[in-house]
Amino acid sequence: MAASGVKALTFDVFGTVVDWRTSITREGAALGKRRSITGVDWARFADDWRAGYGPSMNRVRKGELPWMNIDALHRLILDGLLEKYKISRLDEAEKDAFNRAWHRLDPWPDSRRGLALLRKKFICATLSNGNVSLLVNMARHGGLTWDTVLSGETFKAYKPDAAVYRGAAEMLGVRTEETMMVAAHKNDLQGARKAGLKTAFVERPLEKGPGGGADIGRESWMDIYAKDFVDLANQLGVKG
Amino acid sequence: MAASGVKALTFDVFGTVVDWRTSITREGAALGKRRSITGVDWARFADDWRAGYGPSMNRVRKGELPWMNIDALHRLILDGLLEKYKISRLDEAEKDAFNRAWHRLDPWPDSRRGLALLRKKFICATLSNGNVSLLVNMARHGGLTWDTVLSGETFKAYKPDAAVYRGAAEMLGVRTEETMMVAAHKNDLQGARKAGLKTAFVERPLEKGPGGGADIGRESWMDIYAKDFVDLANQLGVKG
Repeated sequence: MAASGVKALTFDVFGTVVDWRTSITREGAALGKRRSITGVDWARFADDWRAGYGPSMNRVRKGELPWMNIDALHRLILDGLLEKYKISRLDEAEKDAFNRAWHRLDPWPDSRRGLALLRKKFICATLSNGNVSLLVNMARHGGLTWDTVLSGETFKAYKPDAAVYRGAAEMLGVRTEETMMVAAHKNDLQGARKAGLKTAFVERPLEKGPGGGADIGRESWMDIYAKDFVDLANQLGVKG
Repeated sequence: MAASGVKALTFDVFGTVVDWRTSITREGAALGKRRSITGVDWARFADDWRAGYGPSMNRVRKGELPWMNIDALHRLILDGLLEKYKISRLDEAEKDAFNRAWHRLDPWPDSRRGLALLRKKFICATLSNGNVSLLVNMARHGGLTWDTVLSGETFKAYKPDAAVYRGAAEMLGVRTEETMMVAAHKNDLQGARKAGLKTAFVERPLEKGPGGGADIGRESWMDIYAKDFVDLANQLGVKG
């Protein structure tokens, strides 16, 4: 089996475990209605918010910004978007509450059940660039149970830095080759692979909305290619 | 209420959540029987093992030893005790397996139920000097569910260093005064208090065995004094 010897699974979260786009769009629309903000395409707003994520982490990686957690980076991006979309009527408390919408993302329909199956056999931890408190609050919101929450914040570095993947394996007490990274994004899995981890790709075709161009398609270097978390559990020998 | 404003609870683990003495004594006795090791008082062996814990962390704090996690410190102490007790017949794999007995400690009878009650209202995380993998394996062994596992290892420092308590509050996204340290040990709570956390003492009169002199007795500075985890939940407004 491709996954023989695997003892621990580490999970990307945004897009892989939870559906950020639907949740952020819904929270934006609700805020717009509450505060009579008109003319905003909230799905586009969500896409723009997410699009700012990678570049803002790059600024931290390059040292242009000091270490900041994702809550702080989300807020930097949000402040720029509120200007771009000419939304000026939100006070500080409202901006902070909207920024924390990222703590309340809903899981994909199979995530909770698949994760419960996988935990029967494997240590299951997050390994997200999202900060620990964001991931803890999201798990409580979505009824997800992790063995522990690991984050780029734990290692003060962002994926795909090898230090994050290797640090996670070490902290879970397993070797890198006994650890499998689970993600819906090829660049994350390639980073994990370079660090010595095994890789499982999970399809999330609607991550960026219908026709949004989700990262999809099997590659020869992937150890597992799964339709969802329950399929992943089955391929790893857990019946569900 | 003494605990108004509390959002997160951080738990000491050895002695507070789990009964290390009974578990280690039992594992020692089983190993002795399996390998025909006679004349060893395994309860005393367990007490000696535990007694080496504080001094070995002090050597790390003072810089006499480089940063080492608790698995490594437990092993250092074990190697000394095997000499002291003249136990020479264990091979490397047996020593390693015995050292990992600390990953398999049983919870006190009320721990699982009390923790489940407390998680209904509060973010609940470990905050132990035990390393992350030890705590993850122990939680899986004992059926304990944490929102996340935090350890001295997360902050590369050992309690009662204020950096550990403050780091935990920050990582959980709450202020120190919104965080309550739960422990059966006064020095741990005093460290937490100095760092600005609230404190809950939980009685574990048998931690060191019958007549072993467990740390007990209410102090005026404690925010809560509880008989066990279910009592703690009740005092914090969760019915159980």
